[in-house]
Amino acid sequence: MTALDNLAKTLSRLPGVGPKSARRIAFSLIKTQPEFNRLLAENIATIQEKIRPCSICGSFSEGDPCPVCSDSTRDRSQLCIVEQAQDVITIQSSGAYGGLFHVLGGAINPLDGVGPENLSFDKLMKRIDEGAFREVIIATNPTEEGDTTALYIRHLLKSHPEISLTRLASGLPIGGDLEYADETTLKRSLHGRVSF
Amino acid sequence: MTALDNLAKTLSRLPGVGPKSARRIAFSLIKTQPEFNRLLAENIATIQEKIRPCSICGSFSEGDPCPVCSDSTRDRSQLCIVEQAQDVITIQSSGAYGGLFHVLGGAINPLDGVGPENLSFDKLMKRIDEGAFREVIIATNPTEEGDTTALYIRHLLKSHPEISLTRLASGLPIGGDLEYADETTLKRSLHGRVSF
Repeated sequence: MTALDNLAKTLSRLPGVGPKSARRIAFSLIKTQPEFNRLLAENIATIQEKIRPCSICGSFSEGDPCPVCSDSTRDRSQLCIVEQAQDVITIQSSGAYGGLFHVLGGAINPLDGVGPENLSFDKLMKRIDEGAFREVIIATNPTEEGDTTALYIRHLLKSHPEISLTRLASGLPIGGDLEYADETTLKRSLHGRVSF
Repeated sequence: MTALDNLAKTLSRLPGVGPKSARRIAFSLIKTQPEFNRLLAENIATIQEKIRPCSICGSFSEGDPCPVCSDSTRDRSQLCIVEQAQDVITIQSSGAYGGLFHVLGGAINPLDGVGPENLSFDKLMKRIDEGAFREVIIATNPTEEGDTTALYIRHLLKSHPEISLTRLASGLPIGGDLEYADETTLKRSLHGRVSF
């Protein structure tokens, strides 16, 4: 195996990078400015020293606690539960939410051997028991695993009837087309129809 | 800008990696085994020391001359001219060609300021003058730039009437569907129809 095959094979283990794009990237790295390769290699080699999970919410951050958890202007009565750390960034960039987050680290998935004990539910319940949350927003993915996880959270929160529990709305994506909507999305969208 | 944004921005400069996939890859690099990051960084940092252009054909190789140029079992009467070094690998992996290659380093593109003087035509003509080629196969891309480059090669090879000059067939891709073929491909495919 040549150094080129080696690099392409390593690159193809990145998410969303197939064998063909890995080869294309490898070729570009042969032809690029050497400084770019040094910069990229350095960034990759040091990322795990620089970014760590926040000890409170579990999102990735350079500082601990993360900027969201330590921001005193955020609404501490709202808690948004997400599967992954990147979901925090996605919701943050929507600009539509001003509360706190909790990262579960995945979703319940018995087929992959991920049970509630593998996710940060203990930490979640500790935060809820000790905090003053008035609303918990479930923002798990609209998938089977995300649905199962949402049901599990609803079960856990039975001990806190004072907290209102919500979940992100499902339905047709904005800019989407009825013709291309899948059956399940359409069903959910009908089921959750709102007065207009 | 955080280390995460920094890494994502650097990754998004790779070909075929948009801002969203760059972010996704960056997150995966935070969560992956540290050894993987070390391996990837090392591969990227050293690729340009390990892989260099072959001094004969211009394709990328760990040795010089490259394995194709130094393989005495290959047919030295055939020369296949390609735009990029990666095209050599693509044609090699088809297993349908056993001759030699010549990499131009691009295609003639006046709009981008790429003229014949920027491509390895001098080297090409030296190889053809000194070699014993009976056939030259033009394998430039079926694009406007590739077509211009092919015409230029035909012009150059007028001084070698003993060499038969061919070009890769254009037409419908295998497994393709007439309905989805673009007009130009269909025209070429009709124009180049073969008896059956």
